Amino acid sequence: MRQRLMEATVDSLVEFGWAGTTTTVVSRRAGVSRGAQLHHFPSKQDLVLAAVDYITERRRTELEAGIADLPEEGRTRAVLEVLSSQFTSPVFFAALELWVAARTDAALREQVGDLERRIGRETHAQAVELLDIDESRGRNRQLVQATLDLVRGLGLAATLSDDSTRRAAILDAWATTLDHELER
Amino acid sequence: MRQRLMEATVDSLVEFGWAGTTTTVVSRRAGVSRGAQLHHFPSKQDLVLAAVDYITERRRTELEAGIADLPEEGRTRAVLEVLSSQFTSPVFFAALELWVAARTDAALREQVGDLERRIGRETHAQAVELLDIDESRGRNRQLVQATLDLVRGLGLAATLSDDSTRRAAILDAWATTLDHELER
Repeated sequence: MRQRLMEATVDSLVEFGWAGTTTTVVSRRAGVSRGAQLHHFPSKQDLVLAAVDYITERRRTELEAGIADLPEEGRTRAVLEVLSSQFTSPVFFAALELWVAARTDAALREQVGDLERRIGRETHAQAVELLDIDESRGRNRQLVQATLDLVRGLGLAATLSDDSTRRAAILDAWATTLDHELER
Repeated sequence: MRQRLMEATVDSLVEFGWAGTTTTVVSRRAGVSRGAQLHHFPSKQDLVLAAVDYITERRRTELEAGIADLPEEGRTRAVLEVLSSQFTSPVFFAALELWVAARTDAALREQVGDLERRIGRETHAQAVELLDIDESRGRNRQLVQATLDLVRGLGLAATLSDDSTRRAAILDAWATTLDHELER
């Protein structure tokens, strides 16, 4: 039941945005009784925070599983694809609705800030591991941070139109740049 | 009067978000009569699109004027500061409210898409000019695009908390990288 609720919440955020997402819409979509839903998630905020957390985690795990055997040749570009995919997926669009709502809502902002920092740390650790680098060397740490800010920016660009051709060319150039600039 | 309306619209988006911004709120804040406002901007959409366009343009001009005399030493870093400032300013937060509202509103999306592409082209041209590069060489074009996506991602990270220390370190590292990788 929890999984159905989490998926229905993300779907609703993607389709209707923050304002259009209500606990009623989500419980109907998930086929879960209002009572059961409210027992687990008393408010829309609880529901949305839990859903963004849960689906982000699941998506990261899925993507990592898909690249268990990264090629030596073109590895950096493959890693960028994995990272970028996380920021152009429905769960990123759902998270964006939450982030933007939180900007003008002080109570929500604190909770979203905590969630965002945790997701940020986990994604950073994943990037370091996939790139197989020692981040204490040279500018490695900042280059990984820049990479994650880049894919976040690309994710934002993907919200309004299909930006995949431009994105692929940028990631090609970024992979070449990282291969030159990361200290191995 | 137009300028007061444009500023009041951006201020309202920054403070109250898309949902909390109404033509009534804006006309009161601008000290402009409802009749006069509706004559120029019949709907909230007209008002917000015009305001984001106008203020973005003005902010770009202001920032450019401030760096008429870019230093030779550290020029790339200074250019990154100018570009990044445009994506951490109130007008970026206002634009973000508009972009995100447009994602789930087909009619608005078309207009915002046009505006976003135009602003994107202008910011790209500004970056090429400030960096003083020939973008037909090597990976220059993609590196400029990546730079703009990077600062957009940094802008998004700045919406929830003060991210300026982290951002400065990333831009330092990116300036060094660009100086290595751009073909002059």
